[in-house]
Amino acid sequence: MALAGKRKPKPAVKAAYHHGNLREALVAAGLRYLESARRGDELSLRELARRVGVTANAVYRHFADKDALLSALAAEGFRLLRAAQLAAAEGAGQPKLTLKAAGRAYLEFAHGHPALYRLMFGQYAAAHHGGELAEAARSSFQVLLDQVAAARSLQPGDGQVLAGAVHSWGLVHGLSQFWIDGQLDALSDDPAALIESAMQFAVSTPKAGAKG
Amino acid sequence: MALAGKRKPKPAVKAAYHHGNLREALVAAGLRYLESARRGDELSLRELARRVGVTANAVYRHFADKDALLSALAAEGFRLLRAAQLAAAEGAGQPKLTLKAAGRAYLEFAHGHPALYRLMFGQYAAAHHGGELAEAARSSFQVLLDQVAAARSLQPGDGQVLAGAVHSWGLVHGLSQFWIDGQLDALSDDPAALIESAMQFAVSTPKAGAKG
Repeated sequence: MALAGKRKPKPAVKAAYHHGNLREALVAAGLRYLESARRGDELSLRELARRVGVTANAVYRHFADKDALLSALAAEGFRLLRAAQLAAAEGAGQPKLTLKAAGRAYLEFAHGHPALYRLMFGQYAAAHHGGELAEAARSSFQVLLDQVAAARSLQPGDGQVLAGAVHSWGLVHGLSQFWIDGQLDALSDDPAALIESAMQFAVSTPKAGAKG
Repeated sequence: MALAGKRKPKPAVKAAYHHGNLREALVAAGLRYLESARRGDELSLRELARRVGVTANAVYRHFADKDALLSALAAEGFRLLRAAQLAAAEGAGQPKLTLKAAGRAYLEFAHGHPALYRLMFGQYAAAHHGGELAEAARSSFQVLLDQVAAARSLQPGDGQVLAGAVHSWGLVHGLSQFWIDGQLDALSDDPAALIESAMQFAVSTPKAGAKG
C-alpha cells in the first residue's frame, strides 16, 4: 500500500521510544507468553508485536527472526536460573547443603517455568549455542561448578569438578523432566515428595552391607 | 473412481496373510523408521503401509490411529530396554555392580535409539499411559526396583526402594537427554567419557572433609 510515494512517519520507532527499552519489553512479553503457552503452541514475532503494542517492523529491529528471540528468551532463562541457584545458596550453611539447596532451586525453577525450561535445555538451545545464550548458560553452569568444588573440597581445576557437576546436573535435569512431563504421576500421588526422597536417597540410605 | 459398482478382491487382507503377522511387521517397520527419522519427521500410517507393502486399510485393522501405533512402538521399546537391563546384569557380579551395569545399558540404549527413547519418555508416553504401553513400562521399571533393592540391601516393600529407583532413573535419564540432545558437546570433546566419569563420580570421590 505504501510501497511508493511519501513515507508516513515511523510509528514503530515511536512505539519503541515510548517503551523506553523495547527489547526488554519484548523479552518480558515473550516470557509471559511461555508461562501461559500450551505445549505445541508456536510463538510468533507478529503476535508478540501485537501484545506489546508495536508494529512487527519494530520487533524485527531487535530480533532478526524467531530464533533470535528464542535465544534471547533462553538466555534470560539462564540468568533467572543462575539467580535462583545463588539465592538458594545464601544461608544454606555448609557447602554440601548449598549444593542440595541449589539442586532444589533448580527443580523448582523447572517446575515453575516448564516451557522456558524446555526451551533452555531442549534441542533448540543445543543447536543454537552461541553469543548471549552460550554466555548465560556458561555463567549458570559456573555456579554449579563452584558449588560442586566447594561441596567436595576439590580444587577448581580438578577434572572431578566437571564430572561432579554433570552428575548433579544430570540428576536434577532427569527429575525435572519427569516432574514437568508427568512421568511420576503413575508412581506416586505426590510427585514433589517422591522427588524430594529421590534427592535425599544418596545421602540417607545405608550402603549395602552396612545393615545387620 | 470405484465408489459404486463391483468391489475388487481385497488385496489388503491377502497381504496381511502373506506377512503371517502383519502387526509385528508393522511394529518392526515403525522401529526402523524411527532409527532413520530426523527430529520433527512425522510417522504416518500410510507411509508405513507403503513400506510394508500393504494397503492403509490393512494397517487400520491393527492400529486404529497413529496414537495406537506410537503406543505399540513405545511398548516394544520398553521390552527392548528391559532386555538390555537384564542382559547387563548377567555376570556383572555383586548387586552394586549390577545396578551400574544396568545404568550404562540404559544410557547406551538411549544413545543407540534416540527417537524411540524420546517417544518412550516424552510427553506422548506420559499422556497415553495405558494398556500394553503401561504394562511394558512397569515391567522395565520393576527390573530397576529389584536391582536397587538388591544393591542397597533393602526389602522390596521398603519406601526407600522407590526413592532409590527414581534417583537412579533420574540420573541416567538426565545424562541420556544431555547425550542425545548434544548438551555436553560444549563441555567436552568426548561426551561418552564425560558421562562415564559423571556415573562414577558418586562412588569414587572422597566425601568433603575426608581429604587432608
